[in-house]
Amino acid sequence: QSCPATKAGKLNVHLVPHTHDDVGWLKTVDQYFYGSRNEIQHAGVQYILDSVVSQLQSDPTKRFIYVEIAFFYRWWRMQTDQIKQTVKQLVNEAPFKGRLEFINGGWCMNDEASTHYNSIIDQMTLGFQFLQYNFGDCGRPRVAWHIDPFGHSREHASLFAQMGFDGFFFGRLDYQDKRAREMQKEMEQLWRGSVNLEPPFADLFTGVLPNGYNPPSSLCWDGSCSDPPIMDDKDLEDYNVDQIVKYFISIAHAQAGVYRTNHIIMTMGSDFQYENANLWYKNMDKLIKHVNAQQSNGSNVNVLYSTPSCYLSELNKANLTWSVKTDDFFPYADGPHQFWTGYFTSRPALKRYERMSNNFLQVCNQLEVLAGSKSREGPFGKADSFTLKEAMAVAQHHDAVSGTEKQHVADDYAKRLAAGWSRCQVLVSNALASLSGIKQNVHFCNYLNVSACRLTEAASNFTVVLYNPLPRRVTWNVRLPMNGTSYTVTDPKGKTVPNKVMQVSAFTKQVRQDKGSAVNELVFQAAAPALGFSTYSVSRLTEDSLWRRLAQRAQKTQLGDSLQLQNEYYKVTFDSDTGLVSQIENLHKGINLPITQNFYWYNASIGDAKSSQASGAYIFRPDSFNPLLISKTAKTYVVKTRIIKKKKKKKKKKKWQDNVVNISNSDRLAGTPSYLSTAPCRDRWGKEIISRFKTPLQTNATFYTDANGREILQRRRDYRATWKLEQTEPVAGNYYPVNSRIYIKDGKQQLTVLTDRSQGGSSIMDGSFELMLHRRLLYDDHRGVDEPLSEPGDYNVGLVVRGKHILFLDTVDASADLHRPQAQQEFMSPQIVLSTGQQYPYWMGLKSVKEFSALAEELPRNVHLLTLAQWDAKSVLIRLEHQFEKGESTNYSQPVTVDLMKLFSHFMVTSLVEMSLGANEKKDAMKRMAWRVTEDQEPVEPRFSSGRESISAITLKPMEIRTFLATIQYLYS
Amino acid sequence: QSCPATKAGKLNVHLVPHTHDDVGWLKTVDQYFYGSRNEIQHAGVQYILDSVVSQLQSDPTKRFIYVEIAFFYRWWRMQTDQIKQTVKQLVNEAPFKGRLEFINGGWCMNDEASTHYNSIIDQMTLGFQFLQYNFGDCGRPRVAWHIDPFGHSREHASLFAQMGFDGFFFGRLDYQDKRAREMQKEMEQLWRGSVNLEPPFADLFTGVLPNGYNPPSSLCWDGSCSDPPIMDDKDLEDYNVDQIVKYFISIAHAQAGVYRTNHIIMTMGSDFQYENANLWYKNMDKLIKHVNAQQSNGSNVNVLYSTPSCYLSELNKANLTWSVKTDDFFPYADGPHQFWTGYFTSRPALKRYERMSNNFLQVCNQLEVLAGSKSREGPFGKADSFTLKEAMAVAQHHDAVSGTEKQHVADDYAKRLAAGWSRCQVLVSNALASLSGIKQNVHFCNYLNVSACRLTEAASNFTVVLYNPLPRRVTWNVRLPMNGTSYTVTDPKGKTVPNKVMQVSAFTKQVRQDKGSAVNELVFQAAAPALGFSTYSVSRLTEDSLWRRLAQRAQKTQLGDSLQLQNEYYKVTFDSDTGLVSQIENLHKGINLPITQNFYWYNASIGDAKSSQASGAYIFRPDSFNPLLISKTAKTYVVKTRIIKKKKKKKKKKKWQDNVVNISNSDRLAGTPSYLSTAPCRDRWGKEIISRFKTPLQTNATFYTDANGREILQRRRDYRATWKLEQTEPVAGNYYPVNSRIYIKDGKQQLTVLTDRSQGGSSIMDGSFELMLHRRLLYDDHRGVDEPLSEPGDYNVGLVVRGKHILFLDTVDASADLHRPQAQQEFMSPQIVLSTGQQYPYWMGLKSVKEFSALAEELPRNVHLLTLAQWDAKSVLIRLEHQFEKGESTNYSQPVTVDLMKLFSHFMVTSLVEMSLGANEKKDAMKRMAWRVTEDQEPVEPRFSSGRESISAITLKPMEIRTFLATIQYLYS
Repeated sequence: QSCPATKAGKLNVHLVPHTHDDVGWLKTVDQYFYGSRNEIQHAGVQYILDSVVSQLQSDPTKRFIYVEIAFFYRWWRMQTDQIKQTVKQLVNEAPFKGRLEFINGGWCMNDEASTHYNSIIDQMTLGFQFLQYNFGDCGRPRVAWHIDPFGHSREHASLFAQMGFDGFFFGRLDYQDKRAREMQKEMEQLWRGSVNLEPPFADLFTGVLPNGYNPPSSLCWDGSCSDPPIMDDKDLEDYNVDQIVKYFISIAHAQAGVYRTNHIIMTMGSDFQYENANLWYKNMDKLIKHVNAQQSNGSNVNVLYSTPSCYLSELNKANLTWSVKTDDFFPYADGPHQFWTGYFTSRPALKRYERMSNNFLQVCNQLEVLAGSKSREGPFGKADSFTLKEAMAVAQHHDAVSGTEKQHVADDYAKRLAAGWSRCQVLVSNALASLSGIKQNVHFCNYLNVSACRLTEAASNFTVVLYNPLPRRVTWNVRLPMNGTSYTVTDPKGKTVPNKVMQVSAFTKQVRQDKGSAVNELVFQAAAPALGFSTYSVSRLTEDSLWRRLAQRAQKTQLGDSLQLQNEYYKVTFDSDTGLVSQIENLHKGINLPITQNFYWYNASIGDAKSSQASGAYIFRPDSFNPLLISKTAKTYVVKTRIIKKKKKKKKKKKWQDNVVNISNSDRLAGTPSYLSTAPCRDRWGKEIISRFKTPLQTNATFYTDANGREILQRRRDYRATWKLEQTEPVAGNYYPVNSRIYIKDGKQQLTVLTDRSQGGSSIMDGSFELMLHRRLLYDDHRGVDEPLSEPGDYNVGLVVRGKHILFLDTVDASADLHRPQAQQEFMSPQIVLSTGQQYPYWMGLKSVKEFSALAEELPRNVHLLTLAQWDAKSVLIRLEHQFEKGESTNYSQPVTVDLMKLFSHFMVTSLVEMSLGANEKKDAMKRMAWRVTEDQEPVEPRFSSGRESISAITLKPMEIRTFLATIQYLYS
Repeated sequence: QSCPATKAGKLNVHLVPHTHDDVGWLKTVDQYFYGSRNEIQHAGVQYILDSVVSQLQSDPTKRFIYVEIAFFYRWWRMQTDQIKQTVKQLVNEAPFKGRLEFINGGWCMNDEASTHYNSIIDQMTLGFQFLQYNFGDCGRPRVAWHIDPFGHSREHASLFAQMGFDGFFFGRLDYQDKRAREMQKEMEQLWRGSVNLEPPFADLFTGVLPNGYNPPSSLCWDGSCSDPPIMDDKDLEDYNVDQIVKYFISIAHAQAGVYRTNHIIMTMGSDFQYENANLWYKNMDKLIKHVNAQQSNGSNVNVLYSTPSCYLSELNKANLTWSVKTDDFFPYADGPHQFWTGYFTSRPALKRYERMSNNFLQVCNQLEVLAGSKSREGPFGKADSFTLKEAMAVAQHHDAVSGTEKQHVADDYAKRLAAGWSRCQVLVSNALASLSGIKQNVHFCNYLNVSACRLTEAASNFTVVLYNPLPRRVTWNVRLPMNGTSYTVTDPKGKTVPNKVMQVSAFTKQVRQDKGSAVNELVFQAAAPALGFSTYSVSRLTEDSLWRRLAQRAQKTQLGDSLQLQNEYYKVTFDSDTGLVSQIENLHKGINLPITQNFYWYNASIGDAKSSQASGAYIFRPDSFNPLLISKTAKTYVVKTRIIKKKKKKKKKKKWQDNVVNISNSDRLAGTPSYLSTAPCRDRWGKEIISRFKTPLQTNATFYTDANGREILQRRRDYRATWKLEQTEPVAGNYYPVNSRIYIKDGKQQLTVLTDRSQGGSSIMDGSFELMLHRRLLYDDHRGVDEPLSEPGDYNVGLVVRGKHILFLDTVDASADLHRPQAQQEFMSPQIVLSTGQQYPYWMGLKSVKEFSALAEELPRNVHLLTLAQWDAKSVLIRLEHQFEKGESTNYSQPVTVDLMKLFSHFMVTSLVEMSLGANEKKDAMKRMAWRVTEDQEPVEPRFSSGRESISAITLKPMEIRTFLATIQYLYS
């Protein structure tokens, strides 16, 4: 440590000079970096880093922290060796050491509400890797710093703890919560991030910053501020030193009154500040000089430049006993009626694209490892996974996947992801060619969501490669847009598999516009082995005759003739009057639950007598407790095939919901409602569209949501665990982020929905729960984005979004067995690669492979292969995860042991080092600060020793993630 | 010289990084310096200098110019010795030399329209002195730089030439003029500043900058701009290097098309820019790199960092023949209907206060020399002349005395002047005590303009010291506010002098509010010797009896009984119907001119169909050609006394004009109309008030105005000397600045008016001329000040302004003999110091002096003692001026010789060095660039040798000013 000296008998005020640089928000990340489009917002990160580095060089007392590696990386690559050397000195060489400190150190400061743990870990790891490579151990961030995200997830605290952070500071929490904490001096405490991991393993010291992340009122000396500078020349007008010193001392004492030690922190900076660091430092120099000069007049205030880690270190030295927090910081309200629960759903298309992109990135990462260098340079050209890694890291930003950015910035995130896909598609093509031994024209269908694919629409013969990134075999319904009506499909062994051709709906055709022309979809069930692929062939049959088409039509027109869908596990009954689901029966368990599902919309508030707050990108505020029903009844017809049973609800007049209930023959899930949800606003009413499920379950105001796709948190309506809530918004104030699942249960039954993206969800009435699918608003909510959340699309229907909810009805005890693996399967779904035309061997004499698995054996059902990715030229990053919580499954909530030596058939692990979760420190070198949580017990220092386990026996306890850097040797080449 | 290398075969683009720092405008000078009140305008000069100095240190190619010493001085005094050393290196030490260059170098960039030459010279000298002292010869500015003032005066060019500048650049000129110059490639030429001084002595090479003082469109890279930066990382989005390079090359060629050499200049900066110089330099570095890289592809554009003096040096080397300009650049219009002729009059109270302040500053300067160190520390405490010198220098700024600043800033200028007065009043008190040998309570009456003075209102006995700064004896009407009705006044010799007590008008009482309570004014004629003082005593008589007051009243009520005022020289006749002047007769010359004078107001335009331009602080735009008469008739009464003859016009209904015509018994002037001019705006009409004089003189569209109080320029209505004018504003487009006088004449007679401050004036119809007295406007004119020019005051009457016009009717040949000395007498009027109570000798045994002159003999009538001021501890600055133009006076337009050895009786000049006008270079060391003006004649290098003249025979030619630094030895101590 190279922390500044403090004074024991004084009130030490740690000034923390910092800048908060959004990785995209009102401008794109590159616009922010360069400082272009300053007419939108004045912000240019390149200049911030130039300026700060210059300032730090000249003064040993000055400090600065830098957070967002997405920007630092852009800047770093443009610097001369001389500047790089200077920066390295500022980080870790005496006498400059410690003047510049990296804090948090992820690629971005990610959102906590709408992000998935896989992508959080990846984006943090990407930043850590950059820092470790360029700055070594002194560049490793010691403190987590989420000063701007709009609420804080317990799971995230757990992840931070596992990354080795000593502490965590943030700025935003519920205004009532903050008030209560100030009263109780609980602004700082220990946060227990996990109920599964043994304390203090997932404990994280957590501090609420006094002024968000801003400086105290009237003391903002950035170029973007208008507070008076310190005017210290008595010969000029407006001399104000005495006044400012007096003011500063008074606010320091006031702040000390709500914190517990004789150290307090003041964040001296804000959004994109320090572009001209001299303004800040020059005035802070004067502040320090003049305030400390008052010590000779008896003042006990001692001001100094510091950093969060130096401040934290003083807190730790204070050796107090800290209280423990076990819930989370959702939802966030910054005032009455101002719940930031809209962004849980905002921009559902981007949220889905981000989720799909992670799926594809993991595939890309895996294939980069499996095919090695041939994946990066092969028959399809040069390729890389970095572009998508970086785009995904950028997309985790708290104004990216959160949906709280301007429209042009949202477009930019999507564009970056698309560029990443493009590079990874080349990589995947190269890898599959290498692994299969076949080079041929490859095609990726990027518009399957709107039933469009140039290749399948036109080709009579093509092959379908299904790559499965899961460490277990998967079966999957392949759906391809076609123009023919009759096809033969064969599996890797040449065996014909059943298929069905179904019509593309008129609504889909309307939505896809000119992206495709398919009138039908070919559906067949395919399977792919663990961490491998299968190749299927499709051929169009010539007897595409009239009678078949007539038969097809006949089947479709059997309206209302059947009001039940059924497979081996479930029976779903529909109301004959409304056409809506009325009951689900779990046939194996003999459970029977009356249920209604329908779509509603909340009329978005535009402000009212109680508050001027309108619903917007951040904030959800319905103008009424009761949402409006979109349509009471549905036109219903059932399409039964051997593969899926499909009930189609067709709205009569309102064309903006189109619901399909599927039941697969082979799966134990109760149905996958698809929706095409759009929000027309011709009536000038903002719309927040939900899907609500109602049951007679006795839920006692309680429901359950996941945190970042991992541990489940219990939620209680109109209740907060740590303070007595004054509820101002009975709907919005009960919304929570749903990243992957939501459920309600009574003593016996559990109704679970898996989502395909992050959404807001709640249970507004006992027995029911709801998920918000889409939002279209006509007013801005005045949190800076300055645009109403009205995504481009036809004015009448708006942006159309297609999604999927997977519904389970089972016993409480058995539900996790279903939703845990199924969630991972949805999240890590198989990827389809099509090819057509002549096939060439990868090289002469190589035998082609139609089915491939890189695993010697499948991983147990409770183990997830979270990461398999190339780390550097020599090593590979592997993360194994126990995907069950303690006690949620009789079968799977047990420790499990994996033999990494025997796991892979494609390569051999030749060495293995266990690392911190962020892979920036060897696990047995990790050392975190210890905090006392009970008076009579010494604080326990978290121990991270991997316990000398053998490579052949990696034991995972519930919810444990273990991270390894491995060297490998390919067994085939 | 340390100029950057250019390329002979290329088009060299000189980028001139610069900041334009207004010495007050929207914020006060100190607010601008510190960067406070940034909510008004983001600007902080301290940071600009910090930032630029830091940038310049690190790169030998970078350049910067700095202009406004008012700011540099503030910054300099707060720097460490180390920074000072660095800055000195940047100015004049290899390898840093020349990176920072001072340009212009006055305390401010003064206005050219409403400034008086005395104050211009003083303020330039103050800046020069600072630079010379701190930076030596390398700090001496070589180029004049008036990039922002709103029109350019020929006299100013002459002064610049006499200061030794090699060239002059400015930004603002009439839009038609600029267009014509671009067409004719006359953007740069030689300006002949004087018709009196022998060329090339007052010749100044003058360049019109291409973009005002701004960078080319889209290339502003300051923190205050929003143009896109150069984005040169191909891996990021928005790469724009190719596009910017192409654009830059095209605009460089376009600009080269309207200039004459293969060198062009681009001003890279603007108002208060370079607060974060890195933004500018980083992008210009890239621009230079990428544009010059195109040379290898055949581009002929070569970009470099440069300065105006380096650019000028290249123009000089080009050795072209340049055309000569002999008129000036007034009035300035930046578009049709947009004449910047309002500011000639805007803020008439400030304009008058500035003029009075100069008067007092010269008195203060003189007394500092006459009394030496005893003036700076004496019985009244410590004193200095610097405070007023600096306040006056600040007040010369082109948004100060011009009246184009925000109200709070105008208040600040006045406050600074008042602080300067206060310091000088102590100095004057000390000096007079020392010179007179008497210490007693001293009082300055600062409110004589509203007939208020605490001392004279209360005291029964007091003395009046009349100090005369002119080098000739003066006679002056002393007017003091009193409450008694009967007084005895005695002169220095104890002789009783006649006096008169007159009533203070009700309107004056109303205006002065609680500043005073005098009901009467005591008037007596006093005389003071050259550069010296006389002491008069005043005692109130006890027989202040009723009959005297009744007699007084009786005299006053003789309404209409006399319609003529007459003294030895003039007879003024009034129309018996209207009460207005109808005729003036010069009795000695037998000239008789029918004349009417009245007050009118132009209704200010608020924009109309022709143009949206409203009248404002800068711009004068009447809504109609014809002004409105304020009152047709005047109530008239005459007060005849032995001292003055006074005719009072009283408006019947409209109370906002109050006119008094005085004729003094002893002077040869036709009357001094006083006015109390205010502009009520309760009717919501903006008012521009004029005084118009109409005569039958045949003037043929021609009239005459002075330039900065010196040479007279002929003006022609609807005409410009250098291009064919398309007149869009028949009134405003014919207004010119009147600093001291305006006249019209025919072959025989000349009617001249001297003003007491700068005003706009014109002759809109033959035989007439008019002066704008006051302006009160309800709309802003959109030139940045963003306030309507409506000075605080009672809403009904507005700010009340009192003024004086002195009218002469004489032959053309004899007029200058009157107006030249009289103008100086008004400008350098005697100062009154009052004292009361016990008198103590300065020290024991010293004899008191009631009359004093520092001169052994008066200077000839055509010589003005322009400056007598302490320069530094050892030397004194003296300027002598020939105050007549060639040919304007039979008696005085001749060279005149002064014996400086014998001039002063109070001290002896022991050594004398002749200096440049700005006193920053010995005259015989001066060397200016030579410019060719005719093809067949080699350019003449201005020679400044003082010709080895003896100290005893300083010869002054018409309009010549000679500047000396002298050492002196006091003859009495």
